[in-house]
Amino acid sequence: MSSNPSHTLSFHDLKRHNNDRDCWIAVHSKIYDITNYLDSHPGGSSIILRYAGSDATAAYDEIHAPGIIEEALPPECYRGLLDQAEVVNLPPEQKEDMETIEKTTGQSTSTETYTKPELFKLISTQDFVDVARNTLTPKAWAFYSSAATDLVTHHWNSDVYRRIMLRPRVMRNVAKAETRRSILGCPSSAPFFISPAAMARLAHPDGELALARGCASEGLIQVISNNASYPLASVIQAGCTNQPFFFQLYVNAERAKTTQLLHKARELGVKAIFVTVDAHVPGKREADERIAAENVSSAISGAVASNDRKGGGMGRLMGQYIDKTLSWDDIPWIQQTSRLPVVVKGIQSAADAKRAVEYGVQGIVLSNHGGRSLDTAQPSMLTLLELHRICPEIFHRCEVYVDGGVTRGTDILKALSLGATAVGIGRPFLYSLCYGQEGVEHLSQILKDELETSMRLAGITDVGQAGPGLVNTRDVDYLVPGSEEHDWIRWRPKAKM
Amino acid sequence: MSSNPSHTLSFHDLKRHNNDRDCWIAVHSKIYDITNYLDSHPGGSSIILRYAGSDATAAYDEIHAPGIIEEALPPECYRGLLDQAEVVNLPPEQKEDMETIEKTTGQSTSTETYTKPELFKLISTQDFVDVARNTLTPKAWAFYSSAATDLVTHHWNSDVYRRIMLRPRVMRNVAKAETRRSILGCPSSAPFFISPAAMARLAHPDGELALARGCASEGLIQVISNNASYPLASVIQAGCTNQPFFFQLYVNAERAKTTQLLHKARELGVKAIFVTVDAHVPGKREADERIAAENVSSAISGAVASNDRKGGGMGRLMGQYIDKTLSWDDIPWIQQTSRLPVVVKGIQSAADAKRAVEYGVQGIVLSNHGGRSLDTAQPSMLTLLELHRICPEIFHRCEVYVDGGVTRGTDILKALSLGATAVGIGRPFLYSLCYGQEGVEHLSQILKDELETSMRLAGITDVGQAGPGLVNTRDVDYLVPGSEEHDWIRWRPKAKM
Amino acid sequence: MSSNPSHTLSFHDLKRHNNDRDCWIAVHSKIYDITNYLDSHPGGSSIILRYAGSDATAAYDEIHAPGIIEEALPPECYRGLLDQAEVVNLPPEQKEDMETIEKTTGQSTSTETYTKPELFKLISTQDFVDVARNTLTPKAWAFYSSAATDLVTHHWNSDVYRRIMLRPRVMRNVAKAETRRSILGCPSSAPFFISPAAMARLAHPDGELALARGCASEGLIQVISNNASYPLASVIQAGCTNQPFFFQLYVNAERAKTTQLLHKARELGVKAIFVTVDAHVPGKREADERIAAENVSSAISGAVASNDRKGGGMGRLMGQYIDKTLSWDDIPWIQQTSRLPVVVKGIQSAADAKRAVEYGVQGIVLSNHGGRSLDTAQPSMLTLLELHRICPEIFHRCEVYVDGGVTRGTDILKALSLGATAVGIGRPFLYSLCYGQEGVEHLSQILKDELETSMRLAGITDVGQAGPGLVNTRDVDYLVPGSEEHDWIRWRPKAKM
Amino acid sequence: MSSNPSHTLSFHDLKRHNNDRDCWIAVHSKIYDITNYLDSHPGGSSIILRYAGSDATAAYDEIHAPGIIEEALPPECYRGLLDQAEVVNLPPEQKEDMETIEKTTGQSTSTETYTKPELFKLISTQDFVDVARNTLTPKAWAFYSSAATDLVTHHWNSDVYRRIMLRPRVMRNVAKAETRRSILGCPSSAPFFISPAAMARLAHPDGELALARGCASEGLIQVISNNASYPLASVIQAGCTNQPFFFQLYVNAERAKTTQLLHKARELGVKAIFVTVDAHVPGKREADERIAAENVSSAISGAVASNDRKGGGMGRLMGQYIDKTLSWDDIPWIQQTSRLPVVVKGIQSAADAKRAVEYGVQGIVLSNHGGRSLDTAQPSMLTLLELHRICPEIFHRCEVYVDGGVTRGTDILKALSLGATAVGIGRPFLYSLCYGQEGVEHLSQILKDELETSMRLAGITDVGQAGPGLVNTRDVDYLVPGSEEHDWIRWRPKAKM
Repeated sequence: MSSNPSHTLSFHDLKRHNNDRDCWIAVHSKIYDITNYLDSHPGGSSIILRYAGSDATAAYDEIHAPGIIEEALPPECYRGLLDQAEVVNLPPEQKEDMETIEKTTGQSTSTETYTKPELFKLISTQDFVDVARNTLTPKAWAFYSSAATDLVTHHWNSDVYRRIMLRPRVMRNVAKAETRRSILGCPSSAPFFISPAAMARLAHPDGELALARGCASEGLIQVISNNASYPLASVIQAGCTNQPFFFQLYVNAERAKTTQLLHKARELGVKAIFVTVDAHVPGKREADERIAAENVSSAISGAVASNDRKGGGMGRLMGQYIDKTLSWDDIPWIQQTSRLPVVVKGIQSAADAKRAVEYGVQGIVLSNHGGRSLDTAQPSMLTLLELHRICPEIFHRCEVYVDGGVTRGTDILKALSLGATAVGIGRPFLYSLCYGQEGVEHLSQILKDELETSMRLAGITDVGQAGPGLVNTRDVDYLVPGSEEHDWIRWRPKAKM
Repeated sequence: MSSNPSHTLSFHDLKRHNNDRDCWIAVHSKIYDITNYLDSHPGGSSIILRYAGSDATAAYDEIHAPGIIEEALPPECYRGLLDQAEVVNLPPEQKEDMETIEKTTGQSTSTETYTKPELFKLISTQDFVDVARNTLTPKAWAFYSSAATDLVTHHWNSDVYRRIMLRPRVMRNVAKAETRRSILGCPSSAPFFISPAAMARLAHPDGELALARGCASEGLIQVISNNASYPLASVIQAGCTNQPFFFQLYVNAERAKTTQLLHKARELGVKAIFVTVDAHVPGKREADERIAAENVSSAISGAVASNDRKGGGMGRLMGQYIDKTLSWDDIPWIQQTSRLPVVVKGIQSAADAKRAVEYGVQGIVLSNHGGRSLDTAQPSMLTLLELHRICPEIFHRCEVYVDGGVTRGTDILKALSLGATAVGIGRPFLYSLCYGQEGVEHLSQILKDELETSMRLAGITDVGQAGPGLVNTRDVDYLVPGSEEHDWIRWRPKAKM
Repeated sequence: MSSNPSHTLSFHDLKRHNNDRDCWIAVHSKIYDITNYLDSHPGGSSIILRYAGSDATAAYDEIHAPGIIEEALPPECYRGLLDQAEVVNLPPEQKEDMETIEKTTGQSTSTETYTKPELFKLISTQDFVDVARNTLTPKAWAFYSSAATDLVTHHWNSDVYRRIMLRPRVMRNVAKAETRRSILGCPSSAPFFISPAAMARLAHPDGELALARGCASEGLIQVISNNASYPLASVIQAGCTNQPFFFQLYVNAERAKTTQLLHKARELGVKAIFVTVDAHVPGKREADERIAAENVSSAISGAVASNDRKGGGMGRLMGQYIDKTLSWDDIPWIQQTSRLPVVVKGIQSAADAKRAVEYGVQGIVLSNHGGRSLDTAQPSMLTLLELHRICPEIFHRCEVYVDGGVTRGTDILKALSLGATAVGIGRPFLYSLCYGQEGVEHLSQILKDELETSMRLAGITDVGQAGPGLVNTRDVDYLVPGSEEHDWIRWRPKAKM
Repeated sequence: MSSNPSHTLSFHDLKRHNNDRDCWIAVHSKIYDITNYLDSHPGGSSIILRYAGSDATAAYDEIHAPGIIEEALPPECYRGLLDQAEVVNLPPEQKEDMETIEKTTGQSTSTETYTKPELFKLISTQDFVDVARNTLTPKAWAFYSSAATDLVTHHWNSDVYRRIMLRPRVMRNVAKAETRRSILGCPSSAPFFISPAAMARLAHPDGELALARGCASEGLIQVISNNASYPLASVIQAGCTNQPFFFQLYVNAERAKTTQLLHKARELGVKAIFVTVDAHVPGKREADERIAAENVSSAISGAVASNDRKGGGMGRLMGQYIDKTLSWDDIPWIQQTSRLPVVVKGIQSAADAKRAVEYGVQGIVLSNHGGRSLDTAQPSMLTLLELHRICPEIFHRCEVYVDGGVTRGTDILKALSLGATAVGIGRPFLYSLCYGQEGVEHLSQILKDELETSMRLAGITDVGQAGPGLVNTRDVDYLVPGSEEHDWIRWRPKAKM
């Protein structure tokens, strides 16, 4: 066979290459031999093997942007065009088979009675959550909304915001309410950014492009996910001239790939690298796993499936390439390779915050990955309070961001009052993509309006005036660790027995 | 056209003046040109513009007292009488149109199966809430009951009362239980007053007049809202001779209007001015906003509506004239202009309580506007405890009131035990208007009876004997800030980066 | 008319005496003139007036023992026999009227499908509650189960037990588990007594007699209620020889009546007087009030009813004779009049516990009347902890009992561990009356068995070994007042304004 | 009659021996005279007497392994074979009777619509709970899942785990995650063991054999219950060569039996004795009791049943032989008799932990019997924290285990971080038996996988690195007793009154 683009292959030809030693797939009528690529697929090989020897277009489109397969594969993988006539003429049972595959990839069937509201009727972040729950495919909803095991940290993240009280000051001329903030030297119209979140295409065909365009019109900064549905270059191009972007990095077990990626990011004008350090192994997101288990169960026999006990949810699949050996000593390499400001995302203790500063990072994101990694990890706002108690000097040595659980303007104001430069907002913006770019803009405006109102009612006219006097954290203070180790435990290293 | 009162105009004439540069409306068959008045309408222009060129009687009556339009408009705005015959002879589709408007203003349709109980069967504040929920129009219920965003502060307000325990003393001769209290030198039969609450006409045609008459027969004091449905003079006239009234003030961005209003209040014999300082920008009351969004959506096209992201609930509309620049230095001006005792309503921190006293006010209302302004602001009873911890001298320098969340006689006793002179009760009295003046009286009697019973069971015979020994606040003490700033946070102003 | 017992009167004769100046009623076919007795009725006059001029047998039987009316009325009140033939021949509409009365006294109609379980299947206190809820009349259930206003204290009472943890000690020979306890010198087979509870006949025709008989066979002590359905003498006679009884006293506003009662109690061999001091005014028990309001509404016109705003529940009616002027200085009078040990029931603060001891009482019951008096009063177990913190010497100077919220053997063990001599159990024994005397015995055995099991599992063999080392009260310690007044509040008496 | 095994007896013959002085039963067609054995039955006599004079095969099989009756009875009890032909020819009404008995032993009828999921779809401990709830007989579910009275301790056990927060450390090379742990010198592939749990046959015919086989393939240690369905020897034989086992002991009131048992355990190669000390009297497990009460009620008349107030649930029945007099001084006897390491299971206070160490035990299990013994006993993890506060030296003097409430890998990590050598997991493994040995293996793998993931995300590579710096226990610290007695209570022994 040749890589002649006009070469036409029959469905029968395709079907013979259906295993991990000889794997072809068709995407948009083009047939590729991906046998050698299987191990490099960021999402793992097993997800591809489900489509070995068949047309994978539907599954591909759900997650990937059109051009990305050609970017990832060398030209010699191309095998020819799938004979369309033949597709049409498939015998009935075979067509049914394809429909089944489509179904098992998660098309919801229970959304028929739901009428998606007009965008202008949405007035809060929660409204976007509700729309997403009702309109996304079960698979997309599970992937976006799921968190680790019992969702304890996920709920704690927002609970802490709710338990922190505001102490408004009255009768201060608040004609003005300035929300602009400089983040790593880049201007932002508000003290929040879009947290990196993978696979935005699951929510809208424009995926990360819509986020970029929304940020352009709203003056916000997007942290582009390493696992974006679109190539980094496409996302950046979607924005406007001089629009600042940050890039989120998972260090690849094959370091050369990371080197390449960092060089590219720099070339494309990215302003900073956010290294994610709290998801080097995939958290156990059971909603995501269950969807995967359902698919497996309808696709293969129980006997085979029973060997797989680690789950196959999208979260697990996508994390397979991440380097588990990453350590602090890799920071200088990232700094030197990228020649960009480096931010460590996923700090969960004062001890690590201090460590990060010692390594000269420009910022840290206090984050537990939205509760998606290690369940019962302490909520990120508690870590912010821990910094105040254990190492308040941190706030003078780098920028501190916090993410997880932010849904209200008051949440943003509280984080700022406790020293955060900005907060990251992830899932809500993914949900806003149910309305594409307009949804992103509408949500941004809601959050800015809420923040402005909160500032005025709290008695400040600029985000820079927020300080701890504006908040009453008594309801959570007792939860804040007083030292790196427990202070009341007289602990001694245990002798071997 | 002339202002000849007998001049008759056709519906067709009216309909041509239907935009913001030429706006006529009909109210009770009289046609007015309100083009120049649009910007002065306390409720904003957009609410009026919905009725531009049409008959606004139904919407007007829901909120305003009969004479108020003539008081507000100069005589030259009058254009003539609407031809009644013509109204009757409207073509069918046009009539339908008017019905639609009526519907969108919020007539409930789901109350058909609910039988309003006889008044004597109501035995608690909560009973009035239940009646109101079932009998008010959705719009009125949303406007009265709503609170800011997630209702956190709204619920906290009452939770704190519930968490404070009483420590009754037994075997004290309690034949007598005196509830009378002097408030700013005015006699009150009980240590509570009716908090200012806007638009009482939404609940009953007599609106604030019924409140005034109920206060007359029950010996209570009403704080008349700046946004009352009836003119101030009418409300005061509805009361009896020498009945004390207080007047609640929102300072108007056009200060001259406020000057005029204060002069009028003084002339009418008002005893004190309550300056509201916690609602200079409207809180985000989502129930209220959603009703508005529904109306907008049925009245206009989505394309137009999508431009409006700040919401159009009654709360927002009514607050547009309020001066956001109000500051402490305006207090002397209010004092001098009104030559009346001034009370600052909306104090939420010890710092501001001290400030108020420095400015020589006669009283402060610890209030978060019933949770309607800034959600997650600390509950008002917590602020009362904060004063004890940080500035107990306040209680000797002005009267301290507290409002928000009071539903029981025990609540009143607790506030008094912690140093309040009186408590303000707002929503419950609005709900009591479902029975007009009689409802106001019945609710007053329930509260007085509960207070008397509580006093006797707690072992005191006069409200003046209430003191902190009667309450156990341990369950909330840990929530009380220990200083104006957090005591454990070693906070330093953040250097610019 | 004469008091000739054979004199026969027609229904028509009876009906003419139907107002408060001339009031006859028929009870078990005998007609009485009770005009002069109306004001002396412990349950108030209004409840009787509902039956003025009619046959009150059904309502009488529900609450009172057969002979009690003749004990209360002088012989000259007797007017003759009601003509039975006539009753049978009543015109239809009149009969209906009588049925209505019967209905309004609370016959449940929704219990038809409920099958009362066999007694041996009941294995916990809660099981008795469930039976009572399903088998008592709504009126009886409301009267027994109701508590003040929002039931906050009622629920707190049991919550505190649940929040106190046990710290069992293991490997102690527990072959034996002795539950016997001396209470005020009287032997009891277990460290609990039956708390005084009014109107036991509402649950079973044998009422307090069944309680007395159950106590006889189970070796327990009953505190007979001042408002018992049966005369004191009858209750005591129902027991066995030498069975100890205590008598609960409400001091009557007519002191002479109390003197008479105390003399009688002493004569009948009662061992101690429990003076109730926490219900001198009736708490607002809304469930009870609502049942009453329903009855009023079906019996009389709304116009009349609307005058009554203080409610007419059984709790309110029965408390009308109680002396609100009772004070500490009346204690010596009670002691001297009764020449019996005196226990003050209803102590709710360390301050009053100390006062009681100064007055030389033999015991105190830490009680908030089962949450029926002043809602949000602190739970009784918290007062027990308060004594430890403020005046631990109390435990050496009188016996300390606690009631309210006890449902489990572990609850009893906890109270004992914290210094109580015994606990009082009220409502559960009323509910056990659904099975008469056998129910009382069965519940006693369940509680003793639970206590024995708890003792053995906690590692003690005699109730006397219970001490604070067995409990972990950390979860509630922070709620315990540290002094008679708040220690952190710098409170000064407020100057008059 | 003779013990000739071929002797055939009629159903009629059997039926005549139907009381406690002459009791025969048939099991698998063999008839035994068990009159002299009744009092020795570990499960009590009353459970057997239900089948006196009838065929007990169904009830026997549910709980006991096939050979155990012949092991327990001397040969002379054998009476002959039941005439099978006759069974078939029973008159109809008699057959019905047998079916009834079968039903009353607890065959569920509501599981018809439930489809047991394929094993590979189960991804968490909770999934096994759900399957067990839906597939076990009501009797088995009640016996396994029930806990004492109000289930307070049962829920607290898991709540404490949930309230302890993790403090992950990031950027540590976690390529490796070693879960192996030495327990009492025996190798285990993970830091958890299968807690002793009685009557595994209720869940699966292979019962404890399946547990043993699962442990063999997974490298785990099983603590074999004293009340296992299979003889100890059979369980051990089911495992592989050199597989370590521990044996759980209830000391028998007849000490000679315990001596015999300990000798046997040692002979069979058991590695340690776990003496259970927190269930010397049966806790009151109401779900279990209710099932028993239902059975009694359908089998016998209420009159008889009403005498039994202590309940007859399986938990109560099985515990009748346990020695209530067991005390610390019996420890040396157990040590000398068994010549094996001794672990005390059921320690619930620092005081007893110290005592255990003084007696030279090799380990202690902090346990409250899964909440099945004394309700409201403090959760076991709180006792672990209590050891740190009061006697941290314990951790150097014996191994400390904790059980109750463990469902997640994070739970295991938390216990280890606070000094536990291993945790015990009981109920979940019983539930896993719904899938036999494969279920045991699958659950083990889930737990190991969760632990590994948690370790990596927390930043450690070996379970030995877990320490208190990894956890934030602030949310429960206030619950930890500060000394053996309460520190704030000035308690003095109470004088006799």
